[in-house]
Amino acid sequence: MRFDHLGIATRDADQLADLFGGLLDVPVAHREPFDGLDVTFLDLGNGYLELLEPTAESGPVARSLERDGPGIHHVAFETADVAAALDAARAHGVELVDEEPRPGAWGHRVAFLHPGSTGGVLVEFVESA
Amino acid sequence: MRFDHLGIATRDADQLADLFGGLLDVPVAHREPFDGLDVTFLDLGNGYLELLEPTAESGPVARSLERDGPGIHHVAFETADVAAALDAARAHGVELVDEEPRPGAWGHRVAFLHPGSTGGVLVEFVESA
Repeated sequence: MRFDHLGIATRDADQLADLFGGLLDVPVAHREPFDGLDVTFLDLGNGYLELLEPTAESGPVARSLERDGPGIHHVAFETADVAAALDAARAHGVELVDEEPRPGAWGHRVAFLHPGSTGGVLVEFVESA
Repeated sequence: MRFDHLGIATRDADQLADLFGGLLDVPVAHREPFDGLDVTFLDLGNGYLELLEPTAESGPVARSLERDGPGIHHVAFETADVAAALDAARAHGVELVDEEPRPGAWGHRVAFLHPGSTGGVLVEFVESA
């Protein structure tokens, strides 16, 4: 599996998109409201930064901001088949957040693994539409 | 700038290399002792996971494990010229951890930016040898 994107929790996606866009000289590739979040993808050429700004007061990203402050939230790896990747994760004894693929931002099918099983790293599998 | 690697702090690089190697079906590309760390690079095809296991009791990764536990430590972006990238970061008002490029693992030249300036994200610039 290849790198797909790095998810970053922020309280100000506009400001962070300007900063990383300028610092890394990369463009905004996509932006959409999704599931109580303002989601912005910056195109690194070989993957993306996904800026996640909560627009609702609840939800996992809002809780993460409350608990840990802004910063890196998760890493996503690209797979041709999220369901098969989940089966492989189960076979490796990894605990799953999502037992089945579900819709993610940008038309993706996604699933998250439990960080307690993966060295404290919140891992997402992503299958492009 | 493109994605280069994601740095992950761990107390057991062997176990985590086995887990991520199996889960993502990716090989170990390089391993070396560096600056009080056992450093392992897993090859994602379009970048790397860099597993960082402290072998000394002090140092920034040991402190990070003590403070936050294991998990994602930093993200590194590839640049042809770390010194020029640092100049650009200064021009964007970003506070630097390293004012000048310094040697990193795998023969790289590297420099870190202060996460307080970059949305809580510890950013590294990497120039390959």
